[in-house]
Amino acid sequence: MRNRQVLYRRRPEGRLTEDCFAMAEAAVPEPAPGQVLLRNRFLSIDPYQRRMMLGIQGYPTELREGGVMVGRGVAEVVASRDDAWREGDLALGDFGWQEYALAGAGTLRRLDATVQPASLHLGLLGSSGETAWYGLVQLGRPQAGETVVVSAAGGAVGSAVGQIARLLGCRVIGIAGGAVKCAEVVQRFGFHACLDHRAPELTARLRAAAPAGVDVNFENVGGAVLDAVLPTLNPGARVALCGMVAHYNATQPIAFGNLMKLLDQCVTLTGFRIGHVAPTLREQARADLLGWWRDGLLLAPETVTEGLEAAPSALIGLLDGGNIGKRIVCLPWGDAA
Amino acid sequence: MRNRQVLYRRRPEGRLTEDCFAMAEAAVPEPAPGQVLLRNRFLSIDPYQRRMMLGIQGYPTELREGGVMVGRGVAEVVASRDDAWREGDLALGDFGWQEYALAGAGTLRRLDATVQPASLHLGLLGSSGETAWYGLVQLGRPQAGETVVVSAAGGAVGSAVGQIARLLGCRVIGIAGGAVKCAEVVQRFGFHACLDHRAPELTARLRAAAPAGVDVNFENVGGAVLDAVLPTLNPGARVALCGMVAHYNATQPIAFGNLMKLLDQCVTLTGFRIGHVAPTLREQARADLLGWWRDGLLLAPETVTEGLEAAPSALIGLLDGGNIGKRIVCLPWGDAA
Repeated sequence: MRNRQVLYRRRPEGRLTEDCFAMAEAAVPEPAPGQVLLRNRFLSIDPYQRRMMLGIQGYPTELREGGVMVGRGVAEVVASRDDAWREGDLALGDFGWQEYALAGAGTLRRLDATVQPASLHLGLLGSSGETAWYGLVQLGRPQAGETVVVSAAGGAVGSAVGQIARLLGCRVIGIAGGAVKCAEVVQRFGFHACLDHRAPELTARLRAAAPAGVDVNFENVGGAVLDAVLPTLNPGARVALCGMVAHYNATQPIAFGNLMKLLDQCVTLTGFRIGHVAPTLREQARADLLGWWRDGLLLAPETVTEGLEAAPSALIGLLDGGNIGKRIVCLPWGDAA
Repeated sequence: MRNRQVLYRRRPEGRLTEDCFAMAEAAVPEPAPGQVLLRNRFLSIDPYQRRMMLGIQGYPTELREGGVMVGRGVAEVVASRDDAWREGDLALGDFGWQEYALAGAGTLRRLDATVQPASLHLGLLGSSGETAWYGLVQLGRPQAGETVVVSAAGGAVGSAVGQIARLLGCRVIGIAGGAVKCAEVVQRFGFHACLDHRAPELTARLRAAAPAGVDVNFENVGGAVLDAVLPTLNPGARVALCGMVAHYNATQPIAFGNLMKLLDQCVTLTGFRIGHVAPTLREQARADLLGWWRDGLLLAPETVTEGLEAAPSALIGLLDGGNIGKRIVCLPWGDAA
């Protein structure tokens, strides 16, 4: 039995391309005592994977050229040499882009099998949802009646931010790429408005959509999108800086015309990474999200692609802004070599 | 008796120039009931005066083209129609760039005449010191042993920030323009190091001067200076964004290569304006500063120029980075028409 893998071949220069990856095969490893062998069922495709390629530190796994591409997944236990885990158990972990992975039993999180599809543990009920909850609730601190703007509004994090903000009684403005996606964000997720950042005069359109100004900006994009939001911020506004996807592929410095608004409006901007947030807060996030989801108050959109070999293009597509909801790669059993 | 004035003629385009101002004369006004007539003794020259010319709102006074240039001052009461004030009392207020000013008695703050020179009420023991204290202590929250970086380190605010940070047990690195000023910052104010931002490789020199990384950045300059500091920030660093003087004269967007560090390092950046800070905190700042100053723990450097007509060039010089300490224009009695 062989273990198909996607290797991270080389660091991209500018835009991520498929030739930064390569398919490979290895022997399926044997678990040692205290270890578990898992079979990946769902891979989480996330912008942070591109950030890791910039050499940014502080992730639980290390990205090495020539090694297996890193990433979170939902996997089933297929062999266990630890008493706490048995065949068929469902676990969350950093398994990488491969069919089989070994993990120390202590590195795994047991998953609630009644949540279906299990990929939700990667999206709305996993890191994406936790990210949305933490940045909005803890850093944005929106009050009912305030206006929240979120960029990459159609994405896994953005769509959750907007839906939570609406539950909290806020006016919610999304920013996304393209008129079709913007319409979907409004119709499916109940945003009050969604603005196409590819069309001109984003600041003017944002002022029109947020006549009382913007109190909270949940920022996933950075660059020109952030620069367009800055002039609309109210005094004392909060910016939860979650992502800067416009910067990840950039090879040149990025010009900002409006950074002085941070000073003029006494704005607090906080960069954050969900992996650095206290576990108790992440648990609180998951509990809130699961409750809202079970009550039918939150939609958990996904874009699912089948097959391990589709993972590189899924990540490239994510960075190009091509999806709605959580980007997932599904590895069905029938996919095994 | 005539009241000589400096008028704000027109909005600068790019660098501030003398022809944005004009000298004028008016009649000395008569106080109405509840009003006080004051004679300016010291004018405070501050970067925010350039920011007002950008149309930024939220200041206690309004800047109008053709009107008297606005600004804080220390003045003596020369006529009073309010029971709380009598001739010879010393007051702080927004008197503008003119020899005489009328003020409602309720707008004035009474000054401690035992503090000499009285210009300290504008500098270390006034808004400049309050700004340093608030941004450093309340926003920067430095712990003993942490590293603090402050730009415009020779200025009224920067020199106070560095001295306070040293009192709090921090390693203090200044950034200033020119080797001479840097040497003065180290020798007079006890900074552990001061780096010339005009010399190349600022980031590399900052890494060398702050081998444990930077925990607090008190930012007065923005632009290329801020961009050079960002890569040195430690995880969880705090940026107190007090000024962006590199932006005030800018007519083009400014390129940043390192803004993503705010995200990578989970940085909290807070823009603030001392006029928007709670009065109780400002009183606490003044009490701390006065205590430290009376104990001989803080120096209160000043650059003083004589004569009302010197005020425009003093502000221009301040923006060009030409001074050490608080920039003051002194209007001696003998200067009266």
